[in-house]
Amino acid sequence: MREEYEKVYSEIFPFWKKITEEDKNYICDNSTAISYMKGSTVHDGNGCSGVIFLKKGCLRLYIMSDEGKEITLYRLHNGEMCMLSASCVIGAITFDVFVDAEEESECYIIPGPVYSYIAENNTDIKIFTLETAVSRFSDVMWAIQQMFFMSVDKRLAVFLLDEAARTGSDTISLTQDQIAKYMGSAREVVSRMLKYFSSEGLVEVSRKGVKIIDKTALRRLTV
Amino acid sequence: MREEYEKVYSEIFPFWKKITEEDKNYICDNSTAISYMKGSTVHDGNGCSGVIFLKKGCLRLYIMSDEGKEITLYRLHNGEMCMLSASCVIGAITFDVFVDAEEESECYIIPGPVYSYIAENNTDIKIFTLETAVSRFSDVMWAIQQMFFMSVDKRLAVFLLDEAARTGSDTISLTQDQIAKYMGSAREVVSRMLKYFSSEGLVEVSRKGVKIIDKTALRRLTV
Repeated sequence: MREEYEKVYSEIFPFWKKITEEDKNYICDNSTAISYMKGSTVHDGNGCSGVIFLKKGCLRLYIMSDEGKEITLYRLHNGEMCMLSASCVIGAITFDVFVDAEEESECYIIPGPVYSYIAENNTDIKIFTLETAVSRFSDVMWAIQQMFFMSVDKRLAVFLLDEAARTGSDTISLTQDQIAKYMGSAREVVSRMLKYFSSEGLVEVSRKGVKIIDKTALRRLTV
Repeated sequence: MREEYEKVYSEIFPFWKKITEEDKNYICDNSTAISYMKGSTVHDGNGCSGVIFLKKGCLRLYIMSDEGKEITLYRLHNGEMCMLSASCVIGAITFDVFVDAEEESECYIIPGPVYSYIAENNTDIKIFTLETAVSRFSDVMWAIQQMFFMSVDKRLAVFLLDEAARTGSDTISLTQDQIAKYMGSAREVVSRMLKYFSSEGLVEVSRKGVKIIDKTALRRLTV
């Protein structure tokens, strides 16, 4: 694994070339590779799971209320990093996120204290870490604006088109419950809107999921 | 004004002592002091208004939809700084915020390009800037959670009113730790919510405990 970690870290960490061999070893020796089944929990909002590098798969970051309501903040895809799961690394982050594997996912994890130890005396690492967090701030703001400001038809159209693009298939194999959860909406609302879309010939709803029929019309809704 | 700027900047910028006299002069010579009337717009979401230091008053940061719907992200009080109004300073911030003066406010403004120029070759400034932005990320997440989940404020209001009724006193002589424990919540959550209640004039928080100021408004929160 050593070479594998080294290879990946040298690609994703802009500071990799500037740290000592000793620091590199410390990071690699303490890294773990974990595979998550689709649907499993990667980080449950408590403590500091460490800095997660997603080699392959899809992770969903979300916040959750006491009653179990969820808001999806953003998704991570192949080659992306999760800093918010390592709240101990960034002192200024005081909120808890949850992370689920939306697909079978392979991750490399650097424990928070290990990462912090190396970052402590290295301003390049500090800057990289903060910049990664701040760029997610922008993603989250976007999600919030979607959720608050966009009408449901627009949001649903955007969601269906995004999913189709992401999976490379015009059939979105998700239940209405799942779609509602990912959109931060209620199942009844999504169900009603899908019925409307279907009556307008935009989609076809079946047990298999939602099939996009008229992509052009759906796109018109998103502008 | 020169001495005035210098005095304030040396207090708020942890990097002030480490930059050259030339850089200090460059920042001070390009700073402007602006007073805003209550209700006026400080930053309208477009472009880069610069780094704003709020000497006195209250600024509200919010996002706005095309239809004019608003979400308050957080408020700035005496002595605090606004980095989000200077999107040109932090490349990773790609969303627009609006800033209004909620009270008559005195501000010192450093133009974005001036601040960026000094920050460019100074990692201390970069780290300070990013850390300021990330800590606001936490504030924003808190506001979002309040707005979506709406349970903690309700629970805290219920708790305070119950305690007042039980003890026959409008002052709840408990630590924030104790309140959190009784509510089954986290101290940070309670502390933040009390700060919010206090800013809204519902309670007064002191070493003695929490004093209820506006019982009617607090009751409204519980329904």
